[in-house]
Amino acid sequence: MHLVRLGPAGQERPAVVADGTTYDLTGLTADVDGAFLAGGGIAAARAALDAGELPELPDADTLRVGSPIARPGAIICIGMNYAEHAAESGSAPPDVPIMFLKTPNTLAGPHDPVTIPPGSERTDWEVELGVVIGKRALYLDSPSQSLAHVAGFVLGNDVSEREYQLVDSGGQWSKGKCAPGFNPLGPWLATPDEVDHTGLRLRSWVNGDPRQDSTTADMIFGVEHLVWHLSRYLALEPGDVIMTGTPQGVALSGKYPYLRPGDVVELEIEGLGRQRQEFVAAEVA
Amino acid sequence: MHLVRLGPAGQERPAVVADGTTYDLTGLTADVDGAFLAGGGIAAARAALDAGELPELPDADTLRVGSPIARPGAIICIGMNYAEHAAESGSAPPDVPIMFLKTPNTLAGPHDPVTIPPGSERTDWEVELGVVIGKRALYLDSPSQSLAHVAGFVLGNDVSEREYQLVDSGGQWSKGKCAPGFNPLGPWLATPDEVDHTGLRLRSWVNGDPRQDSTTADMIFGVEHLVWHLSRYLALEPGDVIMTGTPQGVALSGKYPYLRPGDVVELEIEGLGRQRQEFVAAEVA
Repeated sequence: MHLVRLGPAGQERPAVVADGTTYDLTGLTADVDGAFLAGGGIAAARAALDAGELPELPDADTLRVGSPIARPGAIICIGMNYAEHAAESGSAPPDVPIMFLKTPNTLAGPHDPVTIPPGSERTDWEVELGVVIGKRALYLDSPSQSLAHVAGFVLGNDVSEREYQLVDSGGQWSKGKCAPGFNPLGPWLATPDEVDHTGLRLRSWVNGDPRQDSTTADMIFGVEHLVWHLSRYLALEPGDVIMTGTPQGVALSGKYPYLRPGDVVELEIEGLGRQRQEFVAAEVA
Repeated sequence: MHLVRLGPAGQERPAVVADGTTYDLTGLTADVDGAFLAGGGIAAARAALDAGELPELPDADTLRVGSPIARPGAIICIGMNYAEHAAESGSAPPDVPIMFLKTPNTLAGPHDPVTIPPGSERTDWEVELGVVIGKRALYLDSPSQSLAHVAGFVLGNDVSEREYQLVDSGGQWSKGKCAPGFNPLGPWLATPDEVDHTGLRLRSWVNGDPRQDSTTADMIFGVEHLVWHLSRYLALEPGDVIMTGTPQGVALSGKYPYLRPGDVVELEIEGLGRQRQEFVAAEVA
Protein backbone atom coordinates (compact mmCIF):
# COMPACT_ATOMS: atom_id res chain seq x y z
CA MET A 1 0.00 0.00 0.00
CA HIS A 2 1.16 3.52 -0.81
CA LEU A 3 0.27 6.37 1.53
CA VAL A 4 0.44 9.93 0.23
CA ARG A 5 -0.42 13.43 1.43
CA LEU A 6 -1.78 15.74 -1.27
CA GLY A 7 -2.55 19.45 -1.32
CA PRO A 8 -0.97 22.82 -0.50
CA ALA A 9 1.87 22.86 2.04
CA GLY A 10 0.43 22.69 5.54
CA GLN A 11 -3.01 21.65 4.24
CA GLU A 12 -2.22 18.22 2.80
CA ARG A 13 -4.91 15.56 2.99
CA PRO A 14 -4.09 11.91 3.53
CA ALA A 15 -4.76 9.41 0.76
CA VAL A 16 -3.99 5.88 -0.38
CA VAL A 17 -2.89 4.97 -3.88
CA ALA A 18 -3.77 1.46 -5.08
CA ASP A 19 -3.77 0.14 -8.65
CA GLY A 20 -3.35 3.64 -10.02
CA THR A 21 -6.35 5.07 -8.19
CA THR A 22 -6.11 7.57 -5.33
CA TYR A 23 -8.52 7.12 -2.41
CA ASP A 24 -9.33 9.75 0.19
CA LEU A 25 -8.33 8.83 3.77
CA THR A 26 -9.80 11.87 5.49
CA GLY A 27 -12.78 9.82 6.68
CA LEU A 28 -10.33 7.67 8.63
CA THR A 29 -7.74 10.17 9.83
CA ALA A 30 -6.96 13.87 9.64
CA ASP A 31 -3.37 13.14 8.71
CA VAL A 32 -0.62 10.55 8.34
CA ASP A 33 1.49 11.22 11.41
CA GLY A 34 2.94 9.44 14.41
CA ALA A 35 -0.41 9.14 16.19
CA PHE A 36 -1.99 7.59 13.09
CA LEU A 37 0.81 5.05 12.74
CA ALA A 38 0.91 4.27 16.48
CA GLY A 39 -2.84 3.70 16.50
CA GLY A 40 -2.81 0.98 13.87
CA GLY A 41 -3.69 3.42 11.10
CA ILE A 42 -2.04 1.46 8.32
CA ALA A 43 -4.00 -1.70 9.12
CA ALA A 44 -7.20 0.33 9.35
CA ALA A 45 -6.50 2.00 6.00
CA ARG A 46 -5.81 -1.35 4.40
CA ALA A 47 -9.03 -2.84 5.79
CA ALA A 48 -11.07 0.14 4.59
CA LEU A 49 -9.43 -0.08 1.17
CA ASP A 50 -10.07 -3.82 0.89
CA ALA A 51 -13.69 -3.33 1.98
CA GLY A 52 -14.21 -0.70 -0.70
CA GLU A 53 -15.06 1.89 1.92
CA LEU A 54 -12.69 4.63 0.75
CA PRO A 55 -14.02 7.21 -1.70
CA GLU A 56 -11.93 8.13 -4.71
CA LEU A 57 -10.12 11.47 -4.41
CA PRO A 58 -11.08 13.45 -7.51
CA ASP A 59 -8.42 15.33 -9.48
CA ALA A 60 -5.66 13.78 -7.38
CA ASP A 61 -3.20 14.26 -10.26
CA THR A 62 -3.60 18.02 -10.09
CA LEU A 63 -2.66 18.31 -6.42
CA ARG A 64 0.77 19.12 -5.02
CA VAL A 65 2.48 16.13 -3.44
CA GLY A 66 3.55 16.67 0.17
CA SER A 67 5.84 14.67 2.39
CA PRO A 68 3.99 11.37 3.01
CA ILE A 69 4.53 11.72 6.75
CA ALA A 70 3.58 14.81 8.77
CA ARG A 71 5.40 16.28 11.74
CA PRO A 72 8.01 13.67 12.62
CA GLY A 73 9.36 14.17 16.12
CA ALA A 74 12.85 13.51 14.82
CA ILE A 75 14.73 13.05 11.56
CA ILE A 76 17.66 10.81 12.38
CA CYS A 77 20.42 10.56 9.79
CA ILE A 78 23.17 8.01 9.31
CA GLY A 79 26.50 9.23 7.94
CA MET A 80 29.03 7.38 5.80
CA ASN A 81 26.87 4.28 5.43
CA TYR A 82 28.18 3.36 1.96
CA ALA A 83 31.88 2.53 1.75
CA GLU A 84 32.50 4.33 -1.53
CA HIS A 85 30.78 7.49 -0.28
CA ALA A 86 32.95 7.42 2.84
CA ALA A 87 35.97 7.14 0.53
CA GLU A 88 34.91 10.06 -1.70
CA SER A 89 34.36 12.12 1.48
CA GLY A 90 37.91 11.36 2.64
CA SER A 91 36.82 9.05 5.48
CA ALA A 92 37.37 5.43 6.39
CA PRO A 93 34.23 3.27 6.57
CA PRO A 94 32.86 3.57 10.11
CA ASP A 95 32.95 0.76 12.69
CA VAL A 96 29.55 1.75 14.06
CA PRO A 97 26.66 3.72 12.57
CA ILE A 98 27.29 7.47 12.75
CA MET A 99 24.15 9.27 13.87
CA PHE A 100 23.30 12.92 13.48
CA LEU A 101 20.03 14.83 13.41
CA LYS A 102 18.15 17.21 11.16
CA THR A 103 15.44 19.49 12.54
CA PRO A 104 12.00 18.24 11.46
CA ASN A 105 11.15 21.65 9.98
CA THR A 106 13.40 20.76 7.02
CA LEU A 107 10.69 18.48 5.68
CA ALA A 108 9.34 19.28 2.20
CA GLY A 109 7.38 17.67 -0.59
CA PRO A 110 9.30 15.65 -3.19
CA HIS A 111 8.87 18.19 -5.98
CA ASP A 112 8.98 21.43 -3.99
CA PRO A 113 11.67 23.89 -5.10
CA VAL A 114 14.62 23.98 -2.72
CA THR A 115 16.12 27.34 -1.78
CA ILE A 116 19.91 27.53 -1.85
CA PRO A 117 20.80 29.39 1.36
CA PRO A 118 22.00 32.99 0.88
CA GLY A 119 25.67 33.00 -0.03
CA SER A 120 25.90 29.21 -0.19
CA GLU A 121 28.51 27.88 -2.62
CA ARG A 122 28.43 24.21 -1.63
CA THR A 123 24.83 22.92 -1.66
CA ASP A 124 24.80 19.20 -2.42
CA TRP A 125 22.34 16.33 -3.00
CA GLU A 126 22.09 12.93 -1.27
CA VAL A 127 19.59 10.29 -2.39
CA GLU A 128 18.65 8.11 0.59
CA LEU A 129 16.34 5.35 1.70
CA GLY A 130 14.17 6.68 4.52
CA VAL A 131 12.69 4.41 7.18
CA VAL A 132 9.49 5.55 8.91
CA ILE A 133 9.00 4.24 12.44
CA GLY A 134 5.55 2.83 13.20
CA LYS A 135 5.96 1.62 16.77
CA ARG A 136 8.16 2.96 19.59
CA ALA A 137 11.55 1.24 19.72
CA LEU A 138 13.83 1.41 22.75
CA TYR A 139 16.49 -1.09 23.76
CA LEU A 140 15.57 -3.74 21.20
CA ASP A 141 17.28 -7.04 21.94
CA SER A 142 18.34 -7.80 18.40
CA PRO A 143 18.07 -6.61 14.80
CA SER A 144 15.50 -9.34 14.21
CA GLN A 145 13.01 -7.23 16.18
CA SER A 146 13.51 -4.12 14.07
CA LEU A 147 11.05 -4.56 11.23
CA ALA A 148 8.13 -4.89 13.64
CA HIS A 149 8.80 -1.23 14.48
CA VAL A 150 8.91 -0.02 10.87
CA ALA A 151 5.79 1.47 9.24
CA GLY A 152 7.36 1.73 5.81
CA PHE A 153 9.95 3.15 3.48
CA VAL A 154 10.28 6.41 1.63
CA LEU A 155 12.60 8.20 -0.80
CA GLY A 156 14.44 11.21 0.59
CA ASN A 157 17.00 13.83 -0.36
CA ASP A 158 19.32 14.66 2.56
CA VAL A 159 20.24 18.06 1.11
CA SER A 160 23.52 19.30 2.58
CA GLU A 161 25.52 22.50 2.62
CA ARG A 162 29.12 21.32 2.91
CA GLU A 163 30.69 24.58 4.07
CA TYR A 164 28.19 24.75 6.93
CA GLN A 165 28.53 21.02 7.63
CA LEU A 166 32.30 20.70 7.57
CA VAL A 167 33.92 24.15 7.87
CA ASP A 168 31.64 26.42 9.94
CA SER A 169 30.70 23.58 12.23
CA GLY A 170 33.46 22.67 14.65
CA GLY A 171 32.99 19.13 13.34
CA GLN A 172 29.29 18.68 14.14
CA TRP A 173 27.41 18.18 10.88
CA SER A 174 23.89 19.36 11.71
CA LYS A 175 24.58 23.01 10.84
CA GLY A 176 24.82 21.98 7.19
CA LYS A 177 21.69 19.84 7.21
CA CYS A 178 18.90 22.03 8.59
CA ALA A 179 18.15 24.85 6.14
CA PRO A 180 14.46 25.21 5.23
CA GLY A 181 13.38 22.66 2.64
CA PHE A 182 16.52 20.53 3.07
CA ASN A 183 14.65 17.24 3.48
CA PRO A 184 12.33 16.51 0.53
CA LEU A 185 10.49 13.26 1.27
CA GLY A 186 8.21 11.13 -0.88
CA PRO A 187 6.27 10.92 -3.13
CA TRP A 188 4.86 7.99 -1.14
CA LEU A 189 5.30 5.87 1.95
CA ALA A 190 5.43 2.20 0.90
CA THR A 191 4.54 -0.43 3.45
CA PRO A 192 7.25 -3.07 4.01
CA ASP A 193 5.39 -5.70 1.96
CA GLU A 194 5.74 -3.48 -1.13
CA VAL A 195 9.54 -3.39 -1.40
CA ASP A 196 12.58 -5.50 -0.61
CA HIS A 197 14.50 -2.83 1.29
CA THR A 198 17.68 -4.92 1.23
CA GLY A 199 18.28 -4.47 -2.48
CA LEU A 200 16.77 -1.32 -3.93
CA ARG A 201 18.49 0.58 -6.70
CA LEU A 202 18.86 4.27 -5.81
CA ARG A 203 19.87 6.97 -8.23
CA SER A 204 20.20 10.71 -8.67
CA TRP A 205 20.66 13.11 -11.57
CA VAL A 206 21.50 16.80 -11.92
CA ASN A 207 20.07 18.49 -15.01
CA GLY A 208 19.51 15.02 -16.45
CA ASP A 209 23.12 13.87 -16.00
CA PRO A 210 23.57 10.80 -13.80
CA ARG A 211 25.23 11.25 -10.42
CA GLN A 212 24.51 8.46 -7.91
CA ASP A 213 23.66 4.89 -8.93
CA SER A 214 23.94 2.23 -6.23
CA THR A 215 21.87 -0.25 -4.31
CA THR A 216 20.80 -0.42 -0.69
CA ALA A 217 22.55 -3.81 -0.67
CA ASP A 218 25.78 -1.77 -0.45
CA MET A 219 24.84 -0.20 2.89
CA ILE A 220 27.46 -0.93 5.54
CA PHE A 221 24.73 -1.16 8.20
CA GLY A 222 21.36 -2.36 6.93
CA VAL A 223 17.93 -1.23 8.07
CA GLU A 224 17.47 -3.95 10.71
CA HIS A 225 20.89 -3.21 12.20
CA LEU A 226 20.28 0.53 12.23
CA VAL A 227 16.90 0.42 14.00
CA TRP A 228 18.27 -1.97 16.63
CA HIS A 229 21.49 0.03 17.07
CA LEU A 230 19.76 3.43 17.34
CA SER A 231 17.30 2.00 19.86
CA ARG A 232 20.25 1.53 22.25
CA TYR A 233 20.75 5.28 22.34
CA LEU A 234 17.33 6.89 22.00
CA ALA A 235 13.65 6.06 21.86
CA LEU A 236 12.51 5.91 18.24
CA GLU A 237 8.95 7.20 18.12
CA PRO A 238 6.12 6.56 15.64
CA GLY A 239 6.48 9.00 12.76
CA ASP A 240 10.22 9.43 13.21
CA VAL A 241 12.23 9.16 10.00
CA ILE A 242 15.63 7.48 9.72
CA MET A 243 17.63 8.61 6.69
CA THR A 244 19.95 5.68 6.10
CA GLY A 245 22.85 7.38 4.34
CA THR A 246 23.82 8.16 0.78
CA PRO A 247 26.02 6.34 -1.76
CA GLN A 248 28.89 7.79 -3.78
CA GLY A 249 28.33 10.39 -6.49
CA VAL A 250 27.77 13.68 -4.64
CA ALA A 251 29.45 17.03 -5.30
CA LEU A 252 31.58 16.69 -2.15
CA SER A 253 33.58 14.08 -4.07
CA GLY A 254 35.07 16.86 -6.22
CA LYS A 255 33.87 15.11 -9.37
CA TYR A 256 30.81 17.32 -9.90
CA PRO A 257 29.96 20.98 -9.35
CA TYR A 258 27.79 22.04 -6.42
CA LEU A 259 24.25 23.16 -7.11
CA ARG A 260 23.48 26.56 -8.61
CA PRO A 261 20.14 28.35 -9.00
CA GLY A 262 18.22 26.77 -11.87
CA ASP A 263 19.73 23.31 -11.43
CA VAL A 264 17.24 20.45 -11.36
CA VAL A 265 17.90 17.45 -9.12
CA GLU A 266 16.05 14.21 -9.71
CA LEU A 267 16.19 11.20 -7.41
CA GLU A 268 14.70 7.76 -7.62
CA ILE A 269 14.55 4.60 -5.55
CA GLU A 270 13.13 1.44 -7.07
CA GLY A 271 9.58 1.00 -5.77
CA LEU A 272 9.60 4.31 -3.91
CA GLY A 273 9.06 6.71 -6.79
CA ARG A 274 10.88 9.73 -8.11
CA GLN A 275 11.54 13.28 -6.94
CA ARG A 276 12.29 16.40 -8.99
CA GLN A 277 13.49 19.60 -7.33
CA GLU A 278 14.48 22.87 -8.89
CA PHE A 279 17.11 24.60 -6.77
CA VAL A 280 16.43 28.32 -6.56
CA ALA A 281 18.24 31.40 -5.30
CA ALA A 282 17.25 32.83 -1.93
CA GLU A 283 15.17 35.96 -2.25
CA VAL A 284 17.11 38.99 -1.07
CA ALA A 285 15.31 40.45 1.95
CA MET B 1 6.25 36.48 34.63
CA HIS B 2 6.86 32.80 35.28
CA LEU B 3 5.11 30.18 33.17
CA VAL B 4 4.86 26.62 34.46
CA ARG B 5 3.23 23.35 33.48
CA LEU B 6 1.94 21.27 36.39
CA GLY B 7 0.56 17.75 36.63
CA PRO B 8 1.35 14.18 35.62
CA ALA B 9 3.67 13.69 32.63
CA GLY B 10 1.69 14.15 29.44
CA GLN B 11 -1.21 15.76 31.29
CA GLU B 12 0.39 18.97 32.51
CA ARG B 13 -1.78 22.07 32.72
CA PRO B 14 -0.43 25.54 32.02
CA ALA B 15 -0.18 28.06 34.81
CA VAL B 16 1.38 31.38 35.77
CA VAL B 17 3.19 32.03 39.01
CA ALA B 18 3.14 35.62 40.30
CA ASP B 19 3.97 36.87 43.80
CA GLY B 20 3.99 33.32 45.14
CA THR B 21 0.53 32.47 43.85
CA THR B 22 -0.15 30.01 41.02
CA TYR B 23 -2.89 30.92 38.54
CA ASP B 24 -4.58 28.52 36.15
CA LEU B 25 -4.04 29.32 32.45
CA THR B 26 -6.30 26.60 31.03
CA GLY B 27 -9.02 29.17 30.34
CA LEU B 28 -6.60 30.89 27.98
CA THR B 29 -4.73 27.98 26.40
CA ALA B 30 -4.60 24.20 26.51
CA ASP B 31 -0.81 24.29 26.81
CA VAL B 32 2.37 26.34 26.66
CA ASP B 33 3.77 25.36 23.29
CA GLY B 34 4.99 26.89 20.06
CA ALA B 35 1.50 27.81 18.88
CA PHE B 36 0.76 29.56 22.17
CA LEU B 37 3.99 31.56 22.00
CA ALA B 38 3.59 32.38 18.30
CA GLY B 39 0.05 33.60 18.89
CA GLY B 40 0.99 36.23 21.45
CA GLY B 41 0.17 33.95 24.36
CA ILE B 42 2.58 35.54 26.80
CA ALA B 43 1.11 39.00 26.29
CA ALA B 44 -2.40 37.56 26.63
CA ALA B 45 -1.45 35.74 29.83
CA ARG B 46 0.08 38.89 31.27
CA ALA B 47 -3.01 40.93 30.40
CA ALA B 48 -5.31 38.35 31.97
CA LEU B 49 -3.11 38.23 35.05
CA ASP B 50 -3.03 42.02 35.40
CA ALA B 51 -6.81 42.19 34.93
CA GLY B 52 -7.31 39.64 37.70
CA GLU B 53 -9.04 37.27 35.28
CA LEU B 54 -7.02 34.14 36.08
CA PRO B 55 -8.37 31.81 38.78
CA GLU B 56 -6.01 30.47 41.40
CA LEU B 57 -4.88 26.91 40.85
CA PRO B 58 -5.63 25.06 44.09
CA ASP B 59 -3.05 22.71 45.59
CA ALA B 60 -0.44 23.79 43.04
CA ASP B 61 2.33 22.86 45.49
CA THR B 62 1.24 19.22 45.44
CA LEU B 63 1.50 18.82 41.66
CA ARG B 64 4.44 17.44 39.73
CA VAL B 65 6.36 20.12 37.85
CA GLY B 66 6.71 19.45 34.11
CA SER B 67 8.91 21.05 31.51
CA PRO B 68 7.59 24.62 31.17
CA ILE B 69 7.44 24.25 27.39
CA ALA B 70 5.62 21.41 25.61
CA ARG B 71 6.60 19.69 22.39
CA PRO B 72 9.47 21.80 21.06
CA GLY B 73 10.09 21.14 17.39
CA ALA B 74 13.81 21.15 18.05
CA ILE B 75 16.26 21.21 20.95
CA ILE B 76 19.37 22.92 19.61
CA CYS B 77 22.52 22.64 21.70
CA ILE B 78 25.72 24.66 21.68
CA GLY B 79 28.96 22.84 22.47
CA MET B 80 32.09 24.21 24.14
CA ASN B 81 30.61 27.63 24.84
CA TYR B 82 32.63 28.25 28.01
CA ALA B 83 36.40 28.43 27.59
CA GLU B 84 37.24 26.48 30.75
CA HIS B 85 34.79 23.69 29.83
CA ALA B 86 36.40 23.42 26.40
CA ALA B 87 39.77 23.13 28.17
CA GLU B 88 38.57 20.43 30.60
CA SER B 89 37.16 18.53 27.57
CA GLY B 90 40.54 18.69 25.83
CA SER B 91 39.41 21.18 23.19
CA ALA B 92 40.43 24.67 22.15
CA PRO B 93 37.73 27.34 22.46
CA PRO B 94 35.77 27.34 19.18
CA ASP B 95 35.92 30.14 16.60
CA VAL B 96 32.21 29.77 15.83
CA PRO B 97 29.31 28.33 17.81
CA ILE B 98 29.24 24.53 17.59
CA MET B 99 25.68 23.32 17.02
CA PHE B 100 24.27 19.87 17.60
CA LEU B 101 20.78 18.56 18.26
CA LYS B 102 18.92 16.51 20.84
CA THR B 103 15.66 14.77 19.97
CA PRO B 104 12.71 16.59 21.59
CA ASN B 105 11.54 13.36 23.24
CA THR B 106 14.39 13.79 25.76
CA LEU B 107 12.37 16.50 27.51
CA ALA B 108 11.51 15.89 31.17
CA GLY B 109 10.36 17.78 34.24
CA PRO B 110 13.01 19.40 36.44
CA HIS B 111 12.61 16.93 39.29
CA ASP B 112 11.83 13.75 37.36
CA PRO B 113 14.19 10.83 38.06
CA VAL B 114 16.65 10.27 35.21
CA THR B 115 17.33 6.71 34.07
CA ILE B 116 20.99 5.88 33.51
CA PRO B 117 20.99 3.92 30.22
CA PRO B 118 21.59 0.15 30.57
CA GLY B 119 25.31 -0.51 30.84
CA SER B 120 26.22 3.18 30.91
CA GLU B 121 29.41 3.98 32.84
CA ARG B 122 29.79 7.63 31.82
CA THR B 123 26.55 9.53 32.44
CA ASP B 124 27.30 13.20 33.13
CA TRP B 125 25.51 16.44 34.08
CA GLU B 126 25.58 19.85 32.36
CA VAL B 127 23.81 22.87 33.85
CA GLU B 128 22.78 25.23 31.04
CA LEU B 129 20.84 28.37 30.30
CA GLY B 130 18.03 27.48 27.89
CA VAL B 131 16.53 30.01 25.48
CA VAL B 132 12.95 29.49 24.32
CA ILE B 133 12.11 30.91 20.90
CA GLY B 134 8.89 32.92 20.72
CA LYS B 135 8.89 34.09 17.11
CA ARG B 136 10.30 32.42 13.99
CA ALA B 137 13.88 33.53 13.27
CA LEU B 138 15.57 33.01 9.90
CA TYR B 139 18.42 35.02 8.42
CA LEU B 140 18.42 37.75 11.05
CA ASP B 141 20.53 40.71 10.00
CA SER B 142 22.29 41.22 13.30
CA PRO B 143 22.43 40.03 16.92
CA SER B 144 20.52 43.18 17.89
CA GLN B 145 17.40 41.57 16.39
CA SER B 146 17.68 38.37 18.42
CA LEU B 147 15.85 39.21 21.64
CA ALA B 148 12.66 40.06 19.73
CA HIS B 149 12.53 36.34 18.86
CA VAL B 150 13.03 35.09 22.42
CA ALA B 151 10.03 34.15 24.57
CA GLY B 152 12.07 33.56 27.69
CA PHE B 153 14.73 31.68 29.58
CA VAL B 154 14.79 28.39 31.38
CA LEU B 155 17.13 26.19 33.43
CA GLY B 156 18.16 22.92 31.79
CA ASN B 157 20.34 19.87 32.32
CA ASP B 158 21.94 18.69 29.07
CA VAL B 159 22.49 15.16 30.41
CA SER B 160 25.19 13.39 28.41
CA GLU B 161 26.58 9.87 28.08
CA ARG B 162 30.22 10.43 27.19
CA GLU B 163 30.96 6.96 25.82
CA TYR B 164 28.03 7.28 23.43
CA GLN B 165 28.89 10.90 22.63
CA LEU B 166 32.62 10.55 22.04
CA VAL B 167 33.53 6.88 21.53
CA ASP B 168 30.57 5.07 19.90
CA SER B 169 29.79 8.06 17.76
CA GLY B 170 32.22 8.51 14.89
CA GLY B 171 32.61 12.05 16.22
CA GLN B 172 28.95 13.15 16.04
CA TRP B 173 27.78 13.94 19.56
CA SER B 174 24.01 13.39 19.35
CA LYS B 175 24.19 9.68 20.15
CA GLY B 176 25.21 10.59 23.70
CA LYS B 177 22.56 13.26 24.17
CA CYS B 178 19.23 11.60 23.31
CA ALA B 179 18.39 8.93 25.89
CA PRO B 180 14.92 9.19 27.43
CA GLY B 181 14.76 11.88 30.11
CA PHE B 182 18.11 13.41 29.14
CA ASN B 183 16.81 16.99 29.00
CA PRO B 184 15.19 18.07 32.28
CA LEU B 185 13.84 21.60 31.81
CA GLY B 186 12.37 24.06 34.30
CA PRO B 187 10.90 24.60 36.81
CA TRP B 188 9.71 27.75 35.05
CA LEU B 189 10.00 29.80 31.90
CA ALA B 190 10.95 33.36 32.86
CA THR B 191 10.12 36.15 30.46
CA PRO B 192 13.12 38.28 29.42
CA ASP B 193 12.13 41.16 31.70
CA GLU B 194 12.58 38.87 34.73
CA VAL B 195 16.30 38.11 34.37
CA ASP B 196 19.48 39.67 33.04
CA HIS B 197 20.56 36.74 30.89
CA THR B 198 24.03 38.21 30.38
CA GLY B 199 25.15 37.63 33.94
CA LEU B 200 23.38 34.76 35.66
CA ARG B 201 25.18 32.54 38.14
CA LEU B 202 24.72 28.88 37.24
CA ARG B 203 25.65 26.00 39.52
CA SER B 204 25.37 22.25 39.94
CA TRP B 205 25.88 19.77 42.75
CA VAL B 206 26.13 15.99 43.02
CA ASN B 207 24.94 14.54 46.33
CA GLY B 208 25.26 18.02 47.78
CA ASP B 209 28.90 18.53 46.72
CA PRO B 210 29.49 21.49 44.43
CA ARG B 211 30.46 20.82 40.81
CA GLN B 212 29.83 23.72 38.43
CA ASP B 213 29.80 27.38 39.52
CA SER B 214 30.09 29.97 36.79
CA THR B 215 28.19 32.81 35.22
CA THR B 216 26.59 33.22 31.82
CA ALA B 217 28.87 36.26 31.46
CA ASP B 218 31.60 33.68 30.71
CA MET B 219 29.85 32.34 27.61
CA ILE B 220 32.07 32.65 24.55
CA PHE B 221 29.03 33.39 22.38
CA GLY B 222 26.19 35.14 24.18
CA VAL B 223 22.46 34.66 23.63
CA GLU B 224 22.05 37.45 21.08
CA HIS B 225 24.99 36.16 19.04
CA LEU B 226 23.73 32.57 19.18
CA VAL B 227 20.19 33.30 18.00
CA TRP B 228 21.48 35.45 15.14
CA HIS B 229 24.18 32.93 14.21
CA LEU B 230 21.87 29.90 14.27
CA SER B 231 19.30 31.76 12.18
CA ARG B 232 21.86 31.77 9.33
CA TYR B 233 21.67 27.97 9.20
CA LEU B 234 18.12 26.98 10.13
CA ALA B 235 14.71 28.44 10.88
CA LEU B 236 14.25 28.74 14.64
CA GLU B 237 10.58 28.08 15.37
CA PRO B 238 8.37 29.18 18.27
CA GLY B 239 8.76 26.69 21.09
CA ASP B 240 12.26 25.60 20.03
CA VAL B 241 14.79 25.46 22.85
CA ILE B 242 18.43 26.52 22.53
CA MET B 243 20.68 25.01 25.19
CA THR B 244 23.54 27.48 25.34
CA GLY B 245 26.34 25.26 26.61
CA THR B 246 27.77 24.28 29.98
CA PRO B 247 30.63 25.65 32.08
CA GLN B 248 33.51 23.69 33.62
CA GLY B 249 32.95 21.18 36.41
CA VAL B 250 31.52 18.08 34.74
CA ALA B 251 32.68 14.47 35.15
CA LEU B 252 34.26 14.47 31.69
CA SER B 253 36.99 16.65 33.22
CA GLY B 254 38.29 13.63 35.13
CA LYS B 255 37.98 15.51 38.42
CA TYR B 256 34.72 13.86 39.47
CA PRO B 257 33.15 10.43 39.12
CA TYR B 258 30.38 9.80 36.62
CA LEU B 259 26.85 9.32 37.91
CA ARG B 260 25.75 6.08 39.56
CA PRO B 261 22.27 4.91 40.55
CA GLY B 262 21.17 6.78 43.66
CA ASP B 263 23.17 9.90 42.92
CA VAL B 264 21.24 13.15 43.22
CA VAL B 265 22.04 16.01 40.87
CA GLU B 266 20.91 19.52 41.70
CA LEU B 267 21.19 22.50 39.39
CA GLU B 268 20.38 26.15 39.78
CA ILE B 269 20.44 29.31 37.73
CA GLU B 270 19.88 32.65 39.40
CA GLY B 271 16.30 33.73 38.71
CA LEU B 272 15.43 30.49 36.92
CA GLY B 273 14.96 28.18 39.89
CA ARG B 274 16.41 24.89 40.95
CA GLN B 275 16.24 21.27 39.73
CA ARG B 276 16.76 18.05 41.66
CA GLN B 277 17.07 14.70 39.89
CA GLU B 278 17.73 11.29 41.28
CA PHE B 279 19.63 9.16 38.80
CA VAL B 280 18.28 5.62 38.75
CA ALA B 281 19.27 2.30 37.25
CA ALA B 282 17.50 1.08 34.13
CA GLU B 283 14.97 -1.64 34.84
CA VAL B 284 16.11 -4.93 33.39
CA ALA B 285 13.61 -5.99 30.76
